[in-house]
Amino acid sequence: MTNTSHIEVDGDRLLADLRKLATFGKFGPGVDRTAFSEPDMAARHWLQKRMAAAGLDVELDGVGNVVGRSPGAGAGVLIGSHTDSVPKGGWLDGAMGVIYGLEIARAARESRDWNTAAIDVVSFQDEEGTFLPCLGSKSLCDEIDDDAIDQASDPSGQSLRDMLARHELDGIPRTRLERTRYRAYLEAHIEQGPRLEAAAKRIGVVTAIVGIRRFRIGVKGQADHAGTTPMRMRKDAGAALIQVASQVLEGCQSNSGPDTVWNIGNVTFEPGAANVVPSGAEMLFEIRDTSPSRLDELEAKLEEVVSEEEAKGQVIFEVSQTASIAPIDMDSALGEAIATAAQSHGEESMYMPSGAGHDAMTLGRHLPTAMLFVPSIGGRSHDTAEDTSEEDILLGCRVLATAVENILRG
Amino acid sequence: MTNTSHIEVDGDRLLADLRKLATFGKFGPGVDRTAFSEPDMAARHWLQKRMAAAGLDVELDGVGNVVGRSPGAGAGVLIGSHTDSVPKGGWLDGAMGVIYGLEIARAARESRDWNTAAIDVVSFQDEEGTFLPCLGSKSLCDEIDDDAIDQASDPSGQSLRDMLARHELDGIPRTRLERTRYRAYLEAHIEQGPRLEAAAKRIGVVTAIVGIRRFRIGVKGQADHAGTTPMRMRKDAGAALIQVASQVLEGCQSNSGPDTVWNIGNVTFEPGAANVVPSGAEMLFEIRDTSPSRLDELEAKLEEVVSEEEAKGQVIFEVSQTASIAPIDMDSALGEAIATAAQSHGEESMYMPSGAGHDAMTLGRHLPTAMLFVPSIGGRSHDTAEDTSEEDILLGCRVLATAVENILRG
Repeated sequence: MTNTSHIEVDGDRLLADLRKLATFGKFGPGVDRTAFSEPDMAARHWLQKRMAAAGLDVELDGVGNVVGRSPGAGAGVLIGSHTDSVPKGGWLDGAMGVIYGLEIARAARESRDWNTAAIDVVSFQDEEGTFLPCLGSKSLCDEIDDDAIDQASDPSGQSLRDMLARHELDGIPRTRLERTRYRAYLEAHIEQGPRLEAAAKRIGVVTAIVGIRRFRIGVKGQADHAGTTPMRMRKDAGAALIQVASQVLEGCQSNSGPDTVWNIGNVTFEPGAANVVPSGAEMLFEIRDTSPSRLDELEAKLEEVVSEEEAKGQVIFEVSQTASIAPIDMDSALGEAIATAAQSHGEESMYMPSGAGHDAMTLGRHLPTAMLFVPSIGGRSHDTAEDTSEEDILLGCRVLATAVENILRG
Repeated sequence: MTNTSHIEVDGDRLLADLRKLATFGKFGPGVDRTAFSEPDMAARHWLQKRMAAAGLDVELDGVGNVVGRSPGAGAGVLIGSHTDSVPKGGWLDGAMGVIYGLEIARAARESRDWNTAAIDVVSFQDEEGTFLPCLGSKSLCDEIDDDAIDQASDPSGQSLRDMLARHELDGIPRTRLERTRYRAYLEAHIEQGPRLEAAAKRIGVVTAIVGIRRFRIGVKGQADHAGTTPMRMRKDAGAALIQVASQVLEGCQSNSGPDTVWNIGNVTFEPGAANVVPSGAEMLFEIRDTSPSRLDELEAKLEEVVSEEEAKGQVIFEVSQTASIAPIDMDSALGEAIATAAQSHGEESMYMPSGAGHDAMTLGRHLPTAMLFVPSIGGRSHDTAEDTSEEDILLGCRVLATAVENILRG
């Protein structure tokens, strides 16, 4: 390591930009800034100006990605995340990773030795999936075609095409990833969970982003009077669903790995009266793991449990898979560069999987990719209560800046 | 047994009256004739005229009961049921038992030897509980006070007092049961279940009306991200409810008697998203049995299962009992009189409990009481598809008429 200068993060400037960004779509202590809403687009126009002021060459592309390119030549890094939010969400989810990128690119431009480095910044559009999950990163990585864009609409039925036209983005080209320009894609994010806080660690190094399999399990039985119909003559969709749900939970428990998580997020019964045997029932079930083979095993367990219950001949099941997202490993050398950077700031990192999806999932299929987590207070996210201490926000950016130095040097 | 004449049921007249009654509030093949609706009151005024034409002295009392009193002196029988329906209900539930009473009283008046018998007829108001379950029979039996009437309202918030005023029933006295006048209260009803049909029996003799205990079981946990929150750090209200529901179903199975029935009629989760650990969950659970001690055992099992789950320390349960109706035995001598009557018509009766509540529950606390069931096609009831074959409707009335002879003779 030579005696070069450092990328010196300006903490006040970083926090000021983050707080300014949080004024767009401000909703209580959080933000309501769904993709292509007026506040989202206003935030993107503001971000364009901030990137330009930092000396970046900025584009707002044909799907609303804001991409800031430094004057530096290749073998650089792309840093970013997203500035759209879930409805009534928090101020840091996505936003923090984008402003880290802005601050690191800006600080590098101001430094003696890093001002020619290719440090580019991106705010992807619609990571949260108001229209299409990870629309922006998938567009950048050429994983999405015009048909998919034609068909996308938000929950209110508003089409993505109409939104692009309203914001004068139709006709503007979609920026594509220049793979050879980057050694790495780096995304910093709040953890959105309680693990760092519980372990009293301040920096998380993401080892992998979990895969998700999501199922809707429906049961059809027959409505009957719950007083006059003997038990053996019932076709009780509710009891059958409870039986399956209970065994699925048990099966997950006994077949789980250290990072497996599962959830029965919703159950509904039809018609739903105390004195009527349920004619129908439904549950939403999901499993997440970093191991595809474990996901296969758990899915097989679900199928086995459903088959056994259906074989009793009382009710009919219908299982549909509503989501299947493959897990992806993060680049271990990049992860080590982050951990080393954390150590140079006096912090031991915690290696952990990301249980939530991120644009890094998309980028990870095209570039060596790494993620850095900072603690979420109380594990909260996707909620206006989402927060991280100022100290942790600043530390995260400083560690990422040092990691960028490590990577560019490497 | 002397060589007396019989109470000769006129089948055509019986069916014509039943079909005429079904025109009030006609709804598809069924009726929508909730208590105090216009069709309900129109039906009651029509019924008054039919009873008067049969030679009965008729009152429409201060809660809408129609009571037809025969000129005969005491030691008689009261026959009846109710003419109100559930919303979008069937044409026979309640109506059949009332028209049986009308036809038997009428046929007795026409007979040589039974024309001085005290055979009275009643159509109770609001058995189905639009305002107050079994309002009419409870009022007749002095089980309800003015306060309860003051406080009753329908699901739309309409008060019972306003309804009574609208139909000019305010100020009219509530008729009270003249206990010494009757040897028996007799109620014929469709089975509302599949047991007679499954056993190919045409007459059911009710041994007891089951007691009902109904519970709302609520769970409070904490909403968390279902991807980022490790399993051991969750307070999963949904999983806890599924565990309890599964064990409650198992507990009922292993502790049930021949006639025990139970039902988890509804389950709901909050907030109900695939990727959010449920913060709340609720289920509606009921048990029915003719034995109070078995109901006690099953309730204790529920409490035990809930306590065990709560002891894990993750979630808080709240169990509230929303209904507790004591079981009641029917009079066995009267039941035998019905069975004997059935035999004289060439039919073996089936002894069975009633899994549904009836006005006979109320009357059974004040008079020797019996119920006769006729088969429900496909077990359907509380639905416009509710039906019974003409042959079974006629047979039921003829058996009940013979039973009345047996009882009055006895």
